[in-house]
Amino acid sequence: MTDAAAGGKHGLTHYREDGAAVMVDVSGKDVTAREATATGVLLTRPDVVERIASGDLPKGEAVAVARVAGILAAKRTHELVPLCHPLPLSGVDVDVVPAGDRVELRATVRTTSRTGVEMEALTAVTVAGLTVYDMIKAVDRAAVLTDVQVVAKSGGASGVWVRDGDAPGAGA
Amino acid sequence: MTDAAAGGKHGLTHYREDGAAVMVDVSGKDVTAREATATGVLLTRPDVVERIASGDLPKGEAVAVARVAGILAAKRTHELVPLCHPLPLSGVDVDVVPAGDRVELRATVRTTSRTGVEMEALTAVTVAGLTVYDMIKAVDRAAVLTDVQVVAKSGGASGVWVRDGDAPGAGA
Amino acid sequence: MTDAAAGGKHGLTHYREDGAAVMVDVSGKDVTAREATATGVLLTRPDVVERIASGDLPKGEAVAVARVAGILAAKRTHELVPLCHPLPLSGVDVDVVPAGDRVELRATVRTTSRTGVEMEALTAVTVAGLTVYDMIKAVDRAAVLTDVQVVAKSGGASGVWVRDGDAPGAGA
Amino acid sequence: MTDAAAGGKHGLTHYREDGAAVMVDVSGKDVTAREATATGVLLTRPDVVERIASGDLPKGEAVAVARVAGILAAKRTHELVPLCHPLPLSGVDVDVVPAGDRVELRATVRTTSRTGVEMEALTAVTVAGLTVYDMIKAVDRAAVLTDVQVVAKSGGASGVWVRDGDAPGAGA
Amino acid sequence: MTDAAAGGKHGLTHYREDGAAVMVDVSGKDVTAREATATGVLLTRPDVVERIASGDLPKGEAVAVARVAGILAAKRTHELVPLCHPLPLSGVDVDVVPAGDRVELRATVRTTSRTGVEMEALTAVTVAGLTVYDMIKAVDRAAVLTDVQVVAKSGGASGVWVRDGDAPGAGA
Amino acid sequence: MTDAAAGGKHGLTHYREDGAAVMVDVSGKDVTAREATATGVLLTRPDVVERIASGDLPKGEAVAVARVAGILAAKRTHELVPLCHPLPLSGVDVDVVPAGDRVELRATVRTTSRTGVEMEALTAVTVAGLTVYDMIKAVDRAAVLTDVQVVAKSGGASGVWVRDGDAPGAGA
Repeated sequence: MTDAAAGGKHGLTHYREDGAAVMVDVSGKDVTAREATATGVLLTRPDVVERIASGDLPKGEAVAVARVAGILAAKRTHELVPLCHPLPLSGVDVDVVPAGDRVELRATVRTTSRTGVEMEALTAVTVAGLTVYDMIKAVDRAAVLTDVQVVAKSGGASGVWVRDGDAPGAGA
Repeated sequence: MTDAAAGGKHGLTHYREDGAAVMVDVSGKDVTAREATATGVLLTRPDVVERIASGDLPKGEAVAVARVAGILAAKRTHELVPLCHPLPLSGVDVDVVPAGDRVELRATVRTTSRTGVEMEALTAVTVAGLTVYDMIKAVDRAAVLTDVQVVAKSGGASGVWVRDGDAPGAGA
Repeated sequence: MTDAAAGGKHGLTHYREDGAAVMVDVSGKDVTAREATATGVLLTRPDVVERIASGDLPKGEAVAVARVAGILAAKRTHELVPLCHPLPLSGVDVDVVPAGDRVELRATVRTTSRTGVEMEALTAVTVAGLTVYDMIKAVDRAAVLTDVQVVAKSGGASGVWVRDGDAPGAGA
Repeated sequence: MTDAAAGGKHGLTHYREDGAAVMVDVSGKDVTAREATATGVLLTRPDVVERIASGDLPKGEAVAVARVAGILAAKRTHELVPLCHPLPLSGVDVDVVPAGDRVELRATVRTTSRTGVEMEALTAVTVAGLTVYDMIKAVDRAAVLTDVQVVAKSGGASGVWVRDGDAPGAGA
Repeated sequence: MTDAAAGGKHGLTHYREDGAAVMVDVSGKDVTAREATATGVLLTRPDVVERIASGDLPKGEAVAVARVAGILAAKRTHELVPLCHPLPLSGVDVDVVPAGDRVELRATVRTTSRTGVEMEALTAVTVAGLTVYDMIKAVDRAAVLTDVQVVAKSGGASGVWVRDGDAPGAGA
Repeated sequence: MTDAAAGGKHGLTHYREDGAAVMVDVSGKDVTAREATATGVLLTRPDVVERIASGDLPKGEAVAVARVAGILAAKRTHELVPLCHPLPLSGVDVDVVPAGDRVELRATVRTTSRTGVEMEALTAVTVAGLTVYDMIKAVDRAAVLTDVQVVAKSGGASGVWVRDGDAPGAGA
């Protein structure tokens, strides 16, 4: 049994029995505190990370720009992902951490509402990652945004869920 | 020599010599036809892909929702990625292809303007991928958006660039 | 007595006694489940409808694009209609049905909040209709979006209302 | 021969041969001055129109609110209608005219770009009409937005087009 | 003790102990009725104000356009000010009053939620003021938007606050 | 003679002879390089400025958040100020400088198009200022955003203009 509204016989939510996409009615779900955390990685080169993290570029500025982009994007998730509900987000926290040959991304989003905030956390991570790419693309066009995933969620009918570390695409 | 405006001594564009983030002035760059293609993958399970691609859910609907989300997102890239320029996009093409245990994503964006559209192509890919995740998260919360990267670009001072499979930062 | 906040002596809500437009204060209204349904029609030609509904164009794709556009538009109603309140929509359902010489449009929107969702339902219908027009305008520039109206609402102080076919102002 | 990019064998633009929705590439089209005019009608009751047009409510305010809503909406057409191109609008003019039992709506939009502005004119008309409805819904919930249509366009490969009163699909 | 979430040792909210910007978690704050009023002034010349307020330009139109701009902007505050929470605004009232050599601006915003609406009131005032500037800049490019400030707020843990004329930081 | 499109007999642009607000047609104006610079000041207290500029809060983070907010806002000016044209901005540069009892704000915006970018520069300054206010309001609710003004512009029919310190309407 999942936290999402019940899907049709095809098992996918967001679709009616006749296959039409809908923004599913969550009126009947409880208003509870909900939280989700997502992570991702922007793979680049050590010399590029060095430029972001120290060197001549103030670390705060580059990291801050990506963090702000992620926070703002979380608030616009429902405008980007068509079947997402608009939610009154009560908190958004984004980390952008240069480390070795990569920039690690993490976002935690909180709400008190009728549905979860996984999509908001994922949107914050991806937009923060794209923003870092935008800054470095002149020196590493080949950088890759990867491993974008939900790592934990809590609240709602399905309760606490924490990702199992070694499950590529593993599912519940 | 890169296509982007010259960065400071730290080598990163989008930043002034004093480290402040700016939307760099591209007034002096040529208005030319430009194109960029990005790709990405949403890793899930074969049974989930089966539900999207055939089964009871009309393939067109699920794929179309993700495709539309990607096209719309490309047009809003400059609202999401803070230092991107607003560009008059002349075309956006998004593919969302269920295949095996994954959904393959590809976007090509075109413009005739003073700077490139890599960020628009990447934004289309990521939002299309997040939209697929949103549809399947009730059956596979552990799905992963991965390998989001620019694979080709053309136009502008740097001309044609095609990704080399083993480029630095190319991921696994 | 109406569901809307009391208007001034001119009888129009959204305006103060001195005639100034305001987003009326709904703080004193109850938070209740509310729902509204709107409909509309895009009049075109049978051969055009045929192309949408069968022929070579996959029906799902054309209909899905319009449906997604309608759902997204419902969420942005308060950005478009100046005096509308931002509302936490709990569900949006849009139907786009090719039939004869027309495409029939219907949207149902739900919320649990202090004011109704008629404007959201109407916005979903009109944007879905404009999206269909956009798709067919190369073959029928003369198509007409017509009969856009609220057909039912429930919730709030005024309770259930269902459109009477010959209500004043009901059109032809 | 139409002004829009060539459609596939199904005759609909915005779709590839395989039926996928795209924002069609207009790179090859000429940058020319283009203009489109759309009209529509909000049908209500004479007493309601009287309140808008004279009575105690300053006419300027109610009409101005709808006009501003229409102008702003024209600028956001590409965010609402998924396959529309973002265009640098060079002028938008919206008329909102109370008359008898109706409010007549008209919008003219101009651009100098690669594709036409019919959708922008239609969007301005519909959002202006919905804004009037929002203002009067407390006194006439049954009002109807109708006869929304393009009446003239010029510029681009197809040149000048003016609506013929009895064109196919022209409504009543 | 302030109404805002507790800041770190640096005393600024919106920042973690490590200095990173966050949208602070307000989950633990009470949902209460909250209201804020802000004011500002656009300084110009008496002849310009005369043109706005009487003369040939209908007063309602110029003032209405600025008022609508302010109301719409209040609803988008969280998109503009990065660390603001999206809030369900229950009312927005904007005054734009031509007087002597200036246009006086005032906005009152109400909500029932977990955090205050000072930023929404300030955003309404500034955007209304910028809109007036836009209208008059051809005749007075030197006009100045000034004295934009919160004058009162109520609701939340800090209760009622009314600006003291000679408060620290109160300007001229 | 002004750079703006000719106004009616009332001398205000953006309005027709009949007093209706329009987004004036700029089709006939030349596409030229244009630039505008605006400034403003957020007045607060020295101890607050100290916290932003040094103390425990990394200067880069607070300043960067405001700078990014200003850059993003410049790109959305036409969504906020109703009669502004959407413009392809080619560069945006925002300075946020803590100094004494105030934070000084400055924005320069560039475009190559048919109308100027004064409104974009003013919007960047005001939103950057509001963002700083948002950060400090818990410690100085009485801070004031003031002296927001255009200080220079160039390009277009009116050529170079630089603000004269004692120009009419120049404030204190």
